[in-house]
Amino acid sequence: MGEFELIRNYFAAAPCAQPGEGVALGIGDDCALLSVAAGEQLAISTDTLVAGVHFPDVCDPFLLGQRALGVSASDLAAMGASPLAFTLALTLPQVSAEWLEAFARGLNTMAQGCGLRLVGGDTTRGPLSLTLTVFGTVPTGKALTRSGARPGDLLCVGGPLGDAAGALPLVLNQRTTEASTTQALLTRYWSPQPQFELGIALRGKASAALDISDGLLADCGHIATSSGVRLLVERDQVPMSDALLRFFGPDAALNAALSGGDDYRLAFTLPPSWLAELQAAGLPVFVLGRVVEGHGVALIDALGQDVTPSTRGYQHFQETR
Amino acid sequence: MGEFELIRNYFAAAPCAQPGEGVALGIGDDCALLSVAAGEQLAISTDTLVAGVHFPDVCDPFLLGQRALGVSASDLAAMGASPLAFTLALTLPQVSAEWLEAFARGLNTMAQGCGLRLVGGDTTRGPLSLTLTVFGTVPTGKALTRSGARPGDLLCVGGPLGDAAGALPLVLNQRTTEASTTQALLTRYWSPQPQFELGIALRGKASAALDISDGLLADCGHIATSSGVRLLVERDQVPMSDALLRFFGPDAALNAALSGGDDYRLAFTLPPSWLAELQAAGLPVFVLGRVVEGHGVALIDALGQDVTPSTRGYQHFQETR
Repeated sequence: MGEFELIRNYFAAAPCAQPGEGVALGIGDDCALLSVAAGEQLAISTDTLVAGVHFPDVCDPFLLGQRALGVSASDLAAMGASPLAFTLALTLPQVSAEWLEAFARGLNTMAQGCGLRLVGGDTTRGPLSLTLTVFGTVPTGKALTRSGARPGDLLCVGGPLGDAAGALPLVLNQRTTEASTTQALLTRYWSPQPQFELGIALRGKASAALDISDGLLADCGHIATSSGVRLLVERDQVPMSDALLRFFGPDAALNAALSGGDDYRLAFTLPPSWLAELQAAGLPVFVLGRVVEGHGVALIDALGQDVTPSTRGYQHFQETR
Repeated sequence: MGEFELIRNYFAAAPCAQPGEGVALGIGDDCALLSVAAGEQLAISTDTLVAGVHFPDVCDPFLLGQRALGVSASDLAAMGASPLAFTLALTLPQVSAEWLEAFARGLNTMAQGCGLRLVGGDTTRGPLSLTLTVFGTVPTGKALTRSGARPGDLLCVGGPLGDAAGALPLVLNQRTTEASTTQALLTRYWSPQPQFELGIALRGKASAALDISDGLLADCGHIATSSGVRLLVERDQVPMSDALLRFFGPDAALNAALSGGDDYRLAFTLPPSWLAELQAAGLPVFVLGRVVEGHGVALIDALGQDVTPSTRGYQHFQETR
């Protein structure tokens, strides 16, 4: 048995890899088999993370496993899907039992937290990278797409923004700060929590949704384009954490919240009539703007003046070094 | 718009990327959405191909696209699944419009030939590799697994073996031969045809099945282990093409057929009562052995003597150089 076959057996033995509801056949055959109930559709998303591009060449494998799956699963939450399963394609330059054990533990921690089961994958030799494909189910016709935003809808997000971008100087060991701030920001970077509960609650209510990966303004641009509308973001309503404000100060914090990327919070548009019900249910719904006729995205101040920054959008990890 | 976003749009415009039966939402949102009919299960397989490991660093991108999807789709055929869709995660060191155009054409040629539609993916910068995740549907309970082989069953394959291994010296420009042989072998290497028709015909008939990727003897070992049986392969019944026999001679040809890998033909076990019906239907069913009690795989001669070679199994592309 080759070392890569050993790895496959290692993952196949993980608690999250056993058959169960919706998973008729897991790891070990030519294909996995998923059962999708009548009246449900299967939501699918694929993400690749490359060492040195999407995460540091040298990083804690536990944290990498946890983050990789959290990032991928966030796409399911953004569609309003319930979590079901995932596959892992892992490419490794060499086999280190210690590295693999920690990576699998991180992956498994996120998988169990989310309710996702590993059903298959592939392990190959090469430069370190991961491709995760995640699967969820959503009642037919209820998926949250990017294309339904209408003038009059509110623009909302699922929580404070910018923490992951705020964590980057800590991830890269470029700066230090007090322990509680460090902990708060690093947790948001290394352990993004897919907003499944929120996404599911938004079925039949939100008119459009996505998860913020490239930065609020850039991702709002995707909703604006797909829906054929204009999104106005109110600068003074952008939610930010105390940790980010302490670490970055108000101006840099706002910049991180608007353009930093890696938030993996949901951004969505909502007919105003649904707002009270969602907030009463204790869901994290932060109103920070509205949908109007037109196209594109604008940042406005309290007087409604356009204060859109000239640069916006995602900074590749590599570009930040 | 970044160059990688341009690529995504390029793939999104491919004919194979449009919604259609079973594909409710294709490329462009957080997730694709697949519809699975009542009474059907979804079969899923993921494969990664890394440059320099699974294919030459320098190779024709059209052929690479065609081969990559054919290899992945073969896992669906081996489960008896009908083809539905696939995702592509493409990691590229740099963007070359010419390379991408040819790669997408190759991918699309195989996709249309197979009836698979591109529904999503990811494009990232890094060392060249591809991860393809393929989706098919199979009636609930009818999937062909590796675990049902029973003593008394016939061992069969879906066609001549060893051609892809025979093509390697041509792929690597180590040898030359006459044009018709070159053409026949290279076609089997660069354009493996998933045996969907055969796999679907075997539903409810074959007791176990897989596709041969690591070599006949090694892959028969997977059926033997999963089913808890012993497989006997009759040396004189192994089907081989005229092209392979001409190029390699009988001994090396047999070795390629037994251990060469990359065949992507189905190997399956079959209760004898089904044989006549399948052959009468014109399906490629070559009987080359049988299932007995015990464990492991043995090669036997016409007298029933064990002539199993001491080495067997897959040679990584890299290891053959």
